Amino acid sequence: MKKLKVGVLVSGNGSNLQAIIDACQRGEVPAEVVSVITNRATAFGLERARKAGIAAVHLDHREFAGREAYDAAVVAELQRQGVELVALAGFMRIITRVLLDAFPQRVMNIHPALLPSFPGLDAQQQALDHGVKVTGCTVHFVDEGTDTGPIIIQAVVPVLPDDSVETLSRRILCQEHRSYPQAIRFYAEGRLTVEGRRVNISGEHVSSDVSLINPSAR
Amino acid sequence: MKKLKVGVLVSGNGSNLQAIIDACQRGEVPAEVVSVITNRATAFGLERARKAGIAAVHLDHREFAGREAYDAAVVAELQRQGVELVALAGFMRIITRVLLDAFPQRVMNIHPALLPSFPGLDAQQQALDHGVKVTGCTVHFVDEGTDTGPIIIQAVVPVLPDDSVETLSRRILCQEHRSYPQAIRFYAEGRLTVEGRRVNISGEHVSSDVSLINPSAR
Repeated sequence: MKKLKVGVLVSGNGSNLQAIIDACQRGEVPAEVVSVITNRATAFGLERARKAGIAAVHLDHREFAGREAYDAAVVAELQRQGVELVALAGFMRIITRVLLDAFPQRVMNIHPALLPSFPGLDAQQQALDHGVKVTGCTVHFVDEGTDTGPIIIQAVVPVLPDDSVETLSRRILCQEHRSYPQAIRFYAEGRLTVEGRRVNISGEHVSSDVSLINPSAR
Repeated sequence: MKKLKVGVLVSGNGSNLQAIIDACQRGEVPAEVVSVITNRATAFGLERARKAGIAAVHLDHREFAGREAYDAAVVAELQRQGVELVALAGFMRIITRVLLDAFPQRVMNIHPALLPSFPGLDAQQQALDHGVKVTGCTVHFVDEGTDTGPIIIQAVVPVLPDDSVETLSRRILCQEHRSYPQAIRFYAEGRLTVEGRRVNISGEHVSSDVSLINPSAR
């Protein structure tokens, strides 16, 4: 199967980028990351990309007149590398129509909460403040709203009594590293179709008898 | 251990009422349902109560001047039966301060969604319309908002590709029947303390390595 060309946008550590690179290299996902773009020169994601031999560029947002001009430069770079799917992985900038129109229904994001709960910044802190007993992550297609696009995959973890933002974030991150490559795999295999707000996945594995309860019974 | 006296308010079928009655009778929950109140003469919950030998009354809201007057009658009946904890189980009326003040931090509710997602009516339809991949139920203490009070337990199920409101509701209901008796048990055992929005549960069983992902990998 021809490999899907993926571009990843990062602002920070890029652990989801790494999970995607690794899953592609292990052959679990019929895709390859061909472009990594960051708005921060210090993003460790740049290191990860270079180590994996991936074209990586820093586009400094301060050098552009506005969000649209910045996104146009991002689009140009993605197109130069032949990118077919764009994955936001901790990219701390608001995306404009310029990017969405260039990659219609082909921009994904991952959010560290069970959307529609806790959109926006500091999702893990929001979850702790609200006192929920479960949270998780959501991989979704990006639309013009903040974390509002059609949902592809969700993964759930318990919130534990002594959780800090750090321990909870780490538990969610483990699920992010499973979910994001899996969503890209579904896309690369041509299995995703979007109907309104719902994402249908052909050949989806149905397991209706699973559940998770927190706290558990004892 | 002295059994906690529970009053249950129902408007309909009362399957959660039944789950609570059964769990108490099996000795899993150190409590007994001593009062069932409904606002609908046709509520099947009334039958269930009478079959179990529980004092059951129909209070017709149309016979009262307003919500407060109605709740005062509910409180009087609950107090007459010596109720210590009030459990709303599909009670389709807005609760006033009259009930909350008479039973401070002693009114529970169950909601068929992972709050704060999808509060209010038709939570299962809301979940389907939003296209979430997981949903579930939430047992919480009742405050003055709609489904906003401190969360005691949450249970998660997958949303499946062909789900209707009926199939999804049934899957969630299985978890409601586990969660609600369990929350009442925690309360009856004196293990719940509320700190702001967070409910702490002493002796809680911690299982940090559980997770649920939907769709799963295949």
